[in-house]
Amino acid sequence: MSSESIKSGSRIAIVGVGQVGGAAAYSLIPASIASELLLVDTRVDFRDGQVQDLSDVAYSSKSRTRVRAGTYSDASQCDIVIITVGSRYTIGETSLGSLYRNVALLRNVIDAMTPFKSDAILLVVSNPVDLLTSIALELSGLPPAQVIGSGTFLESARIRGLISDRTGVAPNSIDAYVLGVRGDSQVVAWSSATIGGVPIDKSLPTKGPLDRKALADECRDQPQKTIRAKGSTPFGIGYVVSNICSSILLDKRNVRLIGHFQPEFRCCFSLPAVIGRKGALATIQIPLDDEEKAEVALSANELRRTLESVHEDL
Amino acid sequence: MSSESIKSGSRIAIVGVGQVGGAAAYSLIPASIASELLLVDTRVDFRDGQVQDLSDVAYSSKSRTRVRAGTYSDASQCDIVIITVGSRYTIGETSLGSLYRNVALLRNVIDAMTPFKSDAILLVVSNPVDLLTSIALELSGLPPAQVIGSGTFLESARIRGLISDRTGVAPNSIDAYVLGVRGDSQVVAWSSATIGGVPIDKSLPTKGPLDRKALADECRDQPQKTIRAKGSTPFGIGYVVSNICSSILLDKRNVRLIGHFQPEFRCCFSLPAVIGRKGALATIQIPLDDEEKAEVALSANELRRTLESVHEDL
Amino acid sequence: MSSESIKSGSRIAIVGVGQVGGAAAYSLIPASIASELLLVDTRVDFRDGQVQDLSDVAYSSKSRTRVRAGTYSDASQCDIVIITVGSRYTIGETSLGSLYRNVALLRNVIDAMTPFKSDAILLVVSNPVDLLTSIALELSGLPPAQVIGSGTFLESARIRGLISDRTGVAPNSIDAYVLGVRGDSQVVAWSSATIGGVPIDKSLPTKGPLDRKALADECRDQPQKTIRAKGSTPFGIGYVVSNICSSILLDKRNVRLIGHFQPEFRCCFSLPAVIGRKGALATIQIPLDDEEKAEVALSANELRRTLESVHEDL
Amino acid sequence: MSSESIKSGSRIAIVGVGQVGGAAAYSLIPASIASELLLVDTRVDFRDGQVQDLSDVAYSSKSRTRVRAGTYSDASQCDIVIITVGSRYTIGETSLGSLYRNVALLRNVIDAMTPFKSDAILLVVSNPVDLLTSIALELSGLPPAQVIGSGTFLESARIRGLISDRTGVAPNSIDAYVLGVRGDSQVVAWSSATIGGVPIDKSLPTKGPLDRKALADECRDQPQKTIRAKGSTPFGIGYVVSNICSSILLDKRNVRLIGHFQPEFRCCFSLPAVIGRKGALATIQIPLDDEEKAEVALSANELRRTLESVHEDL
Repeated sequence: MSSESIKSGSRIAIVGVGQVGGAAAYSLIPASIASELLLVDTRVDFRDGQVQDLSDVAYSSKSRTRVRAGTYSDASQCDIVIITVGSRYTIGETSLGSLYRNVALLRNVIDAMTPFKSDAILLVVSNPVDLLTSIALELSGLPPAQVIGSGTFLESARIRGLISDRTGVAPNSIDAYVLGVRGDSQVVAWSSATIGGVPIDKSLPTKGPLDRKALADECRDQPQKTIRAKGSTPFGIGYVVSNICSSILLDKRNVRLIGHFQPEFRCCFSLPAVIGRKGALATIQIPLDDEEKAEVALSANELRRTLESVHEDL
Repeated sequence: MSSESIKSGSRIAIVGVGQVGGAAAYSLIPASIASELLLVDTRVDFRDGQVQDLSDVAYSSKSRTRVRAGTYSDASQCDIVIITVGSRYTIGETSLGSLYRNVALLRNVIDAMTPFKSDAILLVVSNPVDLLTSIALELSGLPPAQVIGSGTFLESARIRGLISDRTGVAPNSIDAYVLGVRGDSQVVAWSSATIGGVPIDKSLPTKGPLDRKALADECRDQPQKTIRAKGSTPFGIGYVVSNICSSILLDKRNVRLIGHFQPEFRCCFSLPAVIGRKGALATIQIPLDDEEKAEVALSANELRRTLESVHEDL
Repeated sequence: MSSESIKSGSRIAIVGVGQVGGAAAYSLIPASIASELLLVDTRVDFRDGQVQDLSDVAYSSKSRTRVRAGTYSDASQCDIVIITVGSRYTIGETSLGSLYRNVALLRNVIDAMTPFKSDAILLVVSNPVDLLTSIALELSGLPPAQVIGSGTFLESARIRGLISDRTGVAPNSIDAYVLGVRGDSQVVAWSSATIGGVPIDKSLPTKGPLDRKALADECRDQPQKTIRAKGSTPFGIGYVVSNICSSILLDKRNVRLIGHFQPEFRCCFSLPAVIGRKGALATIQIPLDDEEKAEVALSANELRRTLESVHEDL
Repeated sequence: MSSESIKSGSRIAIVGVGQVGGAAAYSLIPASIASELLLVDTRVDFRDGQVQDLSDVAYSSKSRTRVRAGTYSDASQCDIVIITVGSRYTIGETSLGSLYRNVALLRNVIDAMTPFKSDAILLVVSNPVDLLTSIALELSGLPPAQVIGSGTFLESARIRGLISDRTGVAPNSIDAYVLGVRGDSQVVAWSSATIGGVPIDKSLPTKGPLDRKALADECRDQPQKTIRAKGSTPFGIGYVVSNICSSILLDKRNVRLIGHFQPEFRCCFSLPAVIGRKGALATIQIPLDDEEKAEVALSANELRRTLESVHEDL
């Protein structure tokens, strides 16, 4: 048997295999959706340690996915390239210093990978995620549909989970979106939230209406709380990355909140999109009430201005 | 190792293992959600043939589910009792003869199983499904939440599939319900249909609005077309039965269209419900427009009258 | 979204969609390993009925697999082509008439599909399976590794299941092979049977040694018993077909009993093989005792002679 | 809906939710085999951070498993109690100090949990794993079958993976065991290693025999290498813990290498066992050659002596 045939099937690269990259890999392996998982990191010993530890998962899980160390050049030829550099510490950091450090890190890794395989999907997880997704789109030379960010995918899962805990209905029977620019200005689209397709306050007899503000605050503040408690938040986002990769490689065409390019605002942030092998296939035109619309526009315009000032500085 | 320990875990009985019962069993085994699957049928040789053929599936799939023949008395002590007797030919039959034959078959099998294990869920698949679910509730002595029917579960999946084929969005990102009494008077709840939580005509740029009447007709007429072509429709309904059993035994609490008791109309038909280990846990109060409401009430009242005339005759 | 992108991913064709082909399709859809499943049959109405019934499974299961009717020419360009024509009734039939009928059916469908996509895998399920796999290899123009038969895959699963039932150990911790030419002359390779890798009679304290002859007889005679009881045996073999397709499309490289070409005997029958995207990648050299070797050679030579007499007659 | 019904289904507690406990939880949630996952740790803030991060996984994965913080008393009433305290740093540590520290930690947590639910399974992951499993059996008051250790489960998966990498055959078609006392004295049972049930050197034409010593060394030394590279090895062992829990709660009865009580040596170490809901149901009597037997006996007797000296000191 030639070793070439191993290469049939899809390949995923993870650029930056610290806590978040490692957790993403740990979920991706048993899912067995790729034939090869490439770990790329400048910290060579650390990377090789991850390859060894994660190979044990491949062996134990009977996954067909094989894990190996790769170069930036290898990574650029994969079907999905996940960028997690700088994803760990900057959550909650707002200093300009950390922002510019992560912009620089992103430029370096994208430079090292250009040109990408023409149908590659670039998935940005690094923070601040919407700014970096926007920059990655500009630098990568890939079409807009193929550059996406984890955006508010996890926040949308979390708000559904919090609603589920209060109503007793399974999260996958709840539709509730957190959209806009991830972080302090993200918007819970209460006006279109449903349980089983039914507007949320009409669907189930509860002891009273849900406390929307408390839910939105808990959803937004949880990452900082978790970071204060344990130093990082690898698991939730790691699982989300694996989930997005499944939607792409299996061409699932399901609707998920991911950061993708919005022509009206000339930057990337989260609105519901159909996700498949070609990336963000279409934006779902979610009807928002006037207040929600204004909040989204405000945060999008602020992101656009930050993006422009980064351009000027570099 | 004692053989008793085999009994740990959940047990499902299928009463009537013809085409539909067989297809349901064939899906349930690889799903591996039960430790034991009991097949009950008065045609002893046929039943034993099903046990043998389905045991091959258990062996090949490495499922933990073991298949064996059972009596009515064994079945009554299972966690889920699926009744498929008479489910095959009566689809499309409207003669009173076939209706009364199936009512009689149902009475016999329920009599033979009473009393049921107190937390058993009774799942009626026999046709006409809403009438027989209503009668099963009366005869079984079980609480309303524990007697459910397959109702318009499959029709709701089908309308989502048909919309998916026309829009390119995955069925599980579409919410669209077929509700009311299954058959000629079932109602597609267009007023609350959504894609990714967004009202259906606003969500995606298509070449024009969906032809709702054509979709509803195709959804309703497909079973008769299939029966004319191949004599039966085991696969769709078989898969649905397996799916409902997963929601119950894993206590999933997702929202699905199943037939369950509606106090206002004193009979069972399909509205969205939260399904879990205790059966139909709660009805979702779906907002319908006035026309939809009137159609549902019309069909429910007609079912109620048929039910009463069956009572008088028996 | 263009409809072309639907074609990304793998495609499977089933030629002959009666009981066995239908059951194979019913298992393949929720497994979601292919993006398209083509049903091919000369009985057009029946085929379309299967497409409709199976589309309901796709819609209900949220599988990404779409089912549609296809021509022989469409089928020849799929990644896997499953041939089930004549698979139903001939099990247990030994008349020359049925043999020649199925040979003729096979020639017709292969003629209609030649030339195949160069990396297609042809999977023969029709009976007598090893004879027809051998003929399919000659007619198809494909390399030997790419033409395989279901052979004794199911019998090997069944013998493990029967041993599991008697010992209480899970089937997937038992290695026991039924090999050679499927049918009366198939051979249970007791000399290499293991539980957890340990020779079978040494591994577990049981009440005494297993009755090997009774187990082998039960394994061999079960299909005929089932056919007498219910007219056909679609479920076991249908599940096996789906399982083989997973090994191929996911390039699993696991060891399974499938019919594949044996140069020493110039025909196809079952020995353990490594199965992956390129078909039967390698034969495992199973050590047999002298009696087992003689039995395999005897049955292989008889198959070779039948194959030669079929050649002379045609 | 009452919150009590949430408690239907199985419950797992993880005592010690650092790197290893966290990774185990992260695998257990999407597997969805338990209805509740209890995290227990004396570091309250850290524990709550893990609950939050892992709840995000539950929300994103649509698992039915709910994560919450628990007390020792809650943990003792779960179906499986996983003990990971001290599992992280002591790998590779051989100082008596660290050994006694971990013995003391184990005693404390078991004292705090006694008495256990009568059918609880205690799974010890802390290191040195076989010594601590032996002590846990003595302290817990549970029957021998219900106290197991992760032992050489991961090492057995790793040796299969390494053989797979060299032969191109899938790991699940390879049987090769690492047994005895985990660590420097563990034994690769080459004499019974098979590929597809066939003795390993006879099964596949390779470029020559496998270098057994190099493979055994690589298998044994990998954890230390990984720890030097990245400070810990959470992923492999975390996945294994999740895998063992599946075998138990789904009563799978498959054969796996786990540490369990060996009456002949009056201590716990790894031999292949059938694992199910009642724990280690039976030991598989693996035939070893004389040298392998001597090595196992040597390491077992040494473990027994260490155990006795720990008893004297405490």
